[in-house]
Amino acid sequence: MYTRRVQYYETDMMGIAHHANYVHWMEEARIDFMDQIGYPYRRMEAEGVMSPVRAVSIQYKKPCTFGDEIAIFVSVEAFNGVVMTIRYEMTNEDSLICEARSEHVFVNREGRLVRMKRDMPEFCDIIEGLLKSDGH
Amino acid sequence: MYTRRVQYYETDMMGIAHHANYVHWMEEARIDFMDQIGYPYRRMEAEGVMSPVRAVSIQYKKPCTFGDEIAIFVSVEAFNGVVMTIRYEMTNEDSLICEARSEHVFVNREGRLVRMKRDMPEFCDIIEGLLKSDGH
Amino acid sequence: MYTRRVQYYETDMMGIAHHANYVHWMEEARIDFMDQIGYPYRRMEAEGVMSPVRAVSIQYKKPCTFGDEIAIFVSVEAFNGVVMTIRYEMTNEDSLICEARSEHVFVNREGRLVRMKRDMPEFCDIIEGLLKSDGH
Amino acid sequence: MYTRRVQYYETDMMGIAHHANYVHWMEEARIDFMDQIGYPYRRMEAEGVMSPVRAVSIQYKKPCTFGDEIAIFVSVEAFNGVVMTIRYEMTNEDSLICEARSEHVFVNREGRLVRMKRDMPEFCDIIEGLLKSDGH
Repeated sequence: MYTRRVQYYETDMMGIAHHANYVHWMEEARIDFMDQIGYPYRRMEAEGVMSPVRAVSIQYKKPCTFGDEIAIFVSVEAFNGVVMTIRYEMTNEDSLICEARSEHVFVNREGRLVRMKRDMPEFCDIIEGLLKSDGH
Repeated sequence: MYTRRVQYYETDMMGIAHHANYVHWMEEARIDFMDQIGYPYRRMEAEGVMSPVRAVSIQYKKPCTFGDEIAIFVSVEAFNGVVMTIRYEMTNEDSLICEARSEHVFVNREGRLVRMKRDMPEFCDIIEGLLKSDGH
Repeated sequence: MYTRRVQYYETDMMGIAHHANYVHWMEEARIDFMDQIGYPYRRMEAEGVMSPVRAVSIQYKKPCTFGDEIAIFVSVEAFNGVVMTIRYEMTNEDSLICEARSEHVFVNREGRLVRMKRDMPEFCDIIEGLLKSDGH
Repeated sequence: MYTRRVQYYETDMMGIAHHANYVHWMEEARIDFMDQIGYPYRRMEAEGVMSPVRAVSIQYKKPCTFGDEIAIFVSVEAFNGVVMTIRYEMTNEDSLICEARSEHVFVNREGRLVRMKRDMPEFCDIIEGLLKSDGH
C-alpha cells in the first residue's frame, strides 16, 4: 500500500483534486510497488528496459481534496510476457474513491519489444509468483 | 478539431510526452468543443452546473514529443440525460497516436445530479442534434 | 525538514526534474511547515484567510532526477504583518541543489488584505517567535 | 507576443490559476520567442546545445482564471556570452498581471558550458542584435 497526501496545487476550481492527477498517483504507486517487490524501476532502466504505458482507464467514485491522505493498493492483474496489466484501488479514510488500470509493454533503448521470458527471467518469476499467490 | 503543440515541460526522461498530459489535452479539446457547439463551459458554470469526470480511458498508439503539433478530434459518443460520453482521436501528422474516452455527469453547486432534460433543455437539444447527425 | 522523492512524471527530456516542479515542492514544504509550527493551512482557510503567493524566486544550483530524495529546509525570513517571506534550501544527499524564496500576503474571502495583528494574533505570535529564535 | 488561454486544469481551489503554472507559460513564450527570432529551440538541441534554467523570479500582480487569454511579451534583458536573462510581461485584457525573469546557461551533451561566441556565433549575433535594437 502506498499513501499520498493530496497537494494544494492538485486541486482545481471545483475545490477537488483535478482528475488528471490520478494518473500521476498511479505512477507513484506503481513505482513504489516495483520497489516493494524487489525490482525497482531504476534497475529496469539500468538494464536498458523501459515500460511505456499502453493504456490507462480510471473510474472516479468519489472526489478528494487538499490534505486528504489517499491509500493506493496496487496489484498485478495479468501478465502474458508482453503486456502487464496493473490494477489500482484508491481509498480515502477507508472509502473507495477510485478504481483504475494501466497496461504496460517493455521495450529496449531502440524502442523494440523485449522478449521478457528470455531477457528478464527474474522479473517474470516475481510477477508470476504474485499472480499465483493472488489466485490467478 | 483542436490543435495543440507538445510543450517541453510535458516531456519526460524517455524523451516523449508523459502519458498523464493526454488527460489535460482531452480537457482542452473538450472545452474547445463546447465553445464550438455554442455552449461554453463557462456558461454552464454560470448556470450553476458543473460536469465532473466520472471515468477516462486512454489507449496510447504512438508516442509524440516536444514541438509536435497534435490534432484532436472530439465527438459525443453517447448521452442518456445523465451521463455523456465523449470520444477523442489524436493525430500527429495524420498518424493516429491516441484514442480516448471520457464520461461526464452534471451536478449543481450542492453536488446533486441535475435533471438535464428539464433544467438544461438547450444543451440537451444541441447534444442530441450532434448524435443524430453522426448517425447514432 | 520535509523530504520528497522526485517522481518520474516530474522529469523532462533533458533527463532531469523540470524546473517548474520546484514551485510545487516549495508549496509542499511550506504546507508541511505550517503543520509543524501548529498552524495548518487548512485551519487558516477554515478561518476564512487565504495566503496567495505574491512572488517566488528560485536559484537552481544542481539538477536532480527520478528517484532522488530531496530534503527541503523551510524558514521564515521576514514578516511585517502584511507580507511573509519564506526561504527554502533544497539538498540532495547533503549537496545544495536549490535556494528559493516566496512572498505571501493574507486575504479574506472578499480578496481584501487581512489585518493580521488584530485578526490573526496567534499566527503572528508563532511567526514572530520563530523569527526571534532565528536571531532576526 | 505569445497568447495563451488559461486551462481548467491550471486552476486551484482558490478559483485562480495556480502560481506554478506561470513557469510553464514562461517556457512556452520563450520557446515561441526562439521560433520568432529564427533560432528554434529544436535547432539548438539538434546542434547539441541545451539551455538549462539557472534562475527564475516571478512577481504576481493580479490573479487570472479559467478562460482568460493571457498575452506574454518576451524580451532579452542581458547576455554576456554565458548567461542569458529573459524578461516576461504578462497581461490579461491589457492589465499587467505578472512580471518575471529567467536566466539560462548553455551546455553541451556532457553538461559543460558551451563557448557561445566561438561555437554559436549566429545565435550570439541574433541576441546581440536584439539587445542593440532595444537600446541596451
